[in-house]
Amino acid sequence: MADHVHAGKAFFGRSVVSAEDFTKDEILALLDAARSYDRFEDGTPSFQPVPATLQGRVLGLLFFEPSTRTRLSFESAMLRLGGSVLGFADARISSFSKGETLVDTIRVVEGYCDAIVLRHPKEGAARLAAEVARVPVLNGGDGSNQHPTQTFLDLYTIREAAGQLDGLKVGFMGDLRYGRTVHSLASALLHFDVDLKFIGPENLRLPSDLRGQLKQAGRLGAEVTQLADAGDLDVLYVTRIQKERFPDPMDYERVRNAYRVDREALAPLGENLKILHPLPRVNEVATEVDDLPGAIYFQQSRNGVTVRMALLDLILGGRAGAGAS
Amino acid sequence: MADHVHAGKAFFGRSVVSAEDFTKDEILALLDAARSYDRFEDGTPSFQPVPATLQGRVLGLLFFEPSTRTRLSFESAMLRLGGSVLGFADARISSFSKGETLVDTIRVVEGYCDAIVLRHPKEGAARLAAEVARVPVLNGGDGSNQHPTQTFLDLYTIREAAGQLDGLKVGFMGDLRYGRTVHSLASALLHFDVDLKFIGPENLRLPSDLRGQLKQAGRLGAEVTQLADAGDLDVLYVTRIQKERFPDPMDYERVRNAYRVDREALAPLGENLKILHPLPRVNEVATEVDDLPGAIYFQQSRNGVTVRMALLDLILGGRAGAGAS
Amino acid sequence: MADHVHAGKAFFGRSVVSAEDFTKDEILALLDAARSYDRFEDGTPSFQPVPATLQGRVLGLLFFEPSTRTRLSFESAMLRLGGSVLGFADARISSFSKGETLVDTIRVVEGYCDAIVLRHPKEGAARLAAEVARVPVLNGGDGSNQHPTQTFLDLYTIREAAGQLDGLKVGFMGDLRYGRTVHSLASALLHFDVDLKFIGPENLRLPSDLRGQLKQAGRLGAEVTQLADAGDLDVLYVTRIQKERFPDPMDYERVRNAYRVDREALAPLGENLKILHPLPRVNEVATEVDDLPGAIYFQQSRNGVTVRMALLDLILGGRAGAGAS
Repeated sequence: MADHVHAGKAFFGRSVVSAEDFTKDEILALLDAARSYDRFEDGTPSFQPVPATLQGRVLGLLFFEPSTRTRLSFESAMLRLGGSVLGFADARISSFSKGETLVDTIRVVEGYCDAIVLRHPKEGAARLAAEVARVPVLNGGDGSNQHPTQTFLDLYTIREAAGQLDGLKVGFMGDLRYGRTVHSLASALLHFDVDLKFIGPENLRLPSDLRGQLKQAGRLGAEVTQLADAGDLDVLYVTRIQKERFPDPMDYERVRNAYRVDREALAPLGENLKILHPLPRVNEVATEVDDLPGAIYFQQSRNGVTVRMALLDLILGGRAGAGAS
Repeated sequence: MADHVHAGKAFFGRSVVSAEDFTKDEILALLDAARSYDRFEDGTPSFQPVPATLQGRVLGLLFFEPSTRTRLSFESAMLRLGGSVLGFADARISSFSKGETLVDTIRVVEGYCDAIVLRHPKEGAARLAAEVARVPVLNGGDGSNQHPTQTFLDLYTIREAAGQLDGLKVGFMGDLRYGRTVHSLASALLHFDVDLKFIGPENLRLPSDLRGQLKQAGRLGAEVTQLADAGDLDVLYVTRIQKERFPDPMDYERVRNAYRVDREALAPLGENLKILHPLPRVNEVATEVDDLPGAIYFQQSRNGVTVRMALLDLILGGRAGAGAS
Repeated sequence: MADHVHAGKAFFGRSVVSAEDFTKDEILALLDAARSYDRFEDGTPSFQPVPATLQGRVLGLLFFEPSTRTRLSFESAMLRLGGSVLGFADARISSFSKGETLVDTIRVVEGYCDAIVLRHPKEGAARLAAEVARVPVLNGGDGSNQHPTQTFLDLYTIREAAGQLDGLKVGFMGDLRYGRTVHSLASALLHFDVDLKFIGPENLRLPSDLRGQLKQAGRLGAEVTQLADAGDLDVLYVTRIQKERFPDPMDYERVRNAYRVDREALAPLGENLKILHPLPRVNEVATEVDDLPGAIYFQQSRNGVTVRMALLDLILGGRAGAGAS
């Protein structure tokens, strides 16, 4: 109720380019609002359709590079709210001319829809689109830069699983240097009283600007190369280490196996540890981990729909606009 | 009414991996239920929308290989019932990582939708998906293995056109060896008192296990190489002979023309003969046959939507769930 | 009201293959009806959903070659009216067999939907499809032949912007020889008392048959190579000059820059000049022109949705059928 009113004010008609554009209060309002869109109870999908608050509204999806999970998650969110989607899943099968500027494309597409989700290989593309468009633009990932809805769903997942964000010890493991997800979530967690720890290979350590920011805020906990050295953790956020980051394939193979978690590696961290991963995983998390009560990466993926439902409904004024909040 | 109640019990929440998983009663309940979804009267489409029993429900379509007819037929069925669809039409334009297992993909996608249609090049993929998923999985074809909704629509088409299934003489012509459609339909027809005949080249005869099964059941009629030698027929099911089956292209050309039906070839079989073909046809059925009253292959294609509407509505509890049966 | 009744009679159940198939009265009835579907006020999108007059209806989109703008514009129109869409965006990712005839494909697809939009590289494809199909076929462009909905939206845009069509001086600039858009719009404007002028390079002049037609009708005004020589204009319709038309790339570069409009080139034509372009533009219209009050090419693009909404609703009997006209 009050959540929606508050969040509605913060999000109605607004573009979402970076999680950093939103205050702590705005983020909390979104996370609160999202709860009422959650269709899973103990991981079991509910078959109760939600009110069709976005009926007749159209979401445009412009994926200049493929990202099937992000696309389908946004589509599911929009469709569940009674809305519709259009667009393209891959610029290679779009006839949007390479000769046409992104600005022109946005001006054309805003005529087809009520909001745009943009996935683009170039950093800054979403910011530019948001400045030009007369409909809200949601950044579905612009290069290695931002992916704000991933950050929101990560925060939602941790908060729902752990009960709160303040007081948590959160460990990030894997590619700390290039991982967009890690940077954005760590940055957003600065709003809260958390202890952030980082586990990864020497050559994929945190970028110095982010390390500086965390240090200044007094949030930087351990930076270690072994999970065993990280100490207590409430949350472990595992990311993929990409082969392309290693000039020597042998180095990759060594590192890859060093940052793979299985039941044995996780045992010392206790039963309450929550394990997240943005998916897809290759082998960073052994499948034997899936059955642990704290393995919530598939829940995290489902939360992507929940949080995007809340976001779309708030931005497009669905529930609030229908006077039904 | 009673049909829906019965079929509803058999199908609600259930995966459809193989037609062989369903009893004769269950199949008949589905075929009975399907009648009320038929929007064609004498082949003319009706413009009366049906009740939107699946409003707010989402069907996920995961086509790891393209099959445009199957995909569009399922989409049409879901959309006509007021539901929505999402997914991908071709794995080549999906970013589902080759490194991700099918099990992981299914666990992610079940978070986006209420049921999944899976088309996959590998035999057994649908069975695996159905075991893992917490939403129903409908097999849209797994390699050369199963395509159960094709079998259901074939049975529906024959039954509606001929009035009943018991007592029919059904001939299969073309590729009897590799034709998934032939095997699955012949197998399903074992539930009924039918006489099955097979017309095809020596090198594309029935697989021995299916022949054994038919023989044991006392259903195996003629096995011949010429249509003229098959005797009386009520139904002729023609399939495509694929070039790739023949090492020598000349052999293919000879066979291809030998198993092509035109008005002259069909004349001896009489006016009541019903002619089916799973489509697309290349030249197995001459276009001059299209105007014969028994040429029902386009009706058969349209029935694909009808039967899939019934199936989706029953599985997802639409009509029954709305208490409107 | 009366508009819809009139237009409804002319368009209900009808295929749209060529603008030339429609009388002046029919075209005016469509343009009148379209006004009530316009969701833009002074270029600002309205977030009021329109009545879902096509709920439960399905539009099939068969794009045998990609044309993202045309496809998305039709999709937006159908979705806004509460309908659904299915189909494929590119024949390369469809499995419609190259061995299957267009006639067979249409007969299959008409079973999936209530109307078909066909985009096809071959001239005459839409006419053939419309003759075969038992549902209406809308031509979304067949080779270099026809693209009737583009012509309707161009007429609508000019009429809404200029207040009327009679009495206008309309200049076409760019590729006059191969431009399908130019030919079709010029031809449709013959219904009205207009003065048509043509500005383009020597080697891309009007085809002789169209010139003859215009001359005979007394509508052919200036044919010049420089915009400065065209005299007064109320409307300037700019089109792209395609590189492929020029054997010598240097010739292309010369011509390309000669037919590029900027503020300086447009200044002598006055503030009331309306500038149209079918988009995408490469550099034919300088971006500094975008802010001129007469630069209505993005409005023109948005009108594509408006006019297609009217057309689909009339053809499928939505508003009229609902008795709500």
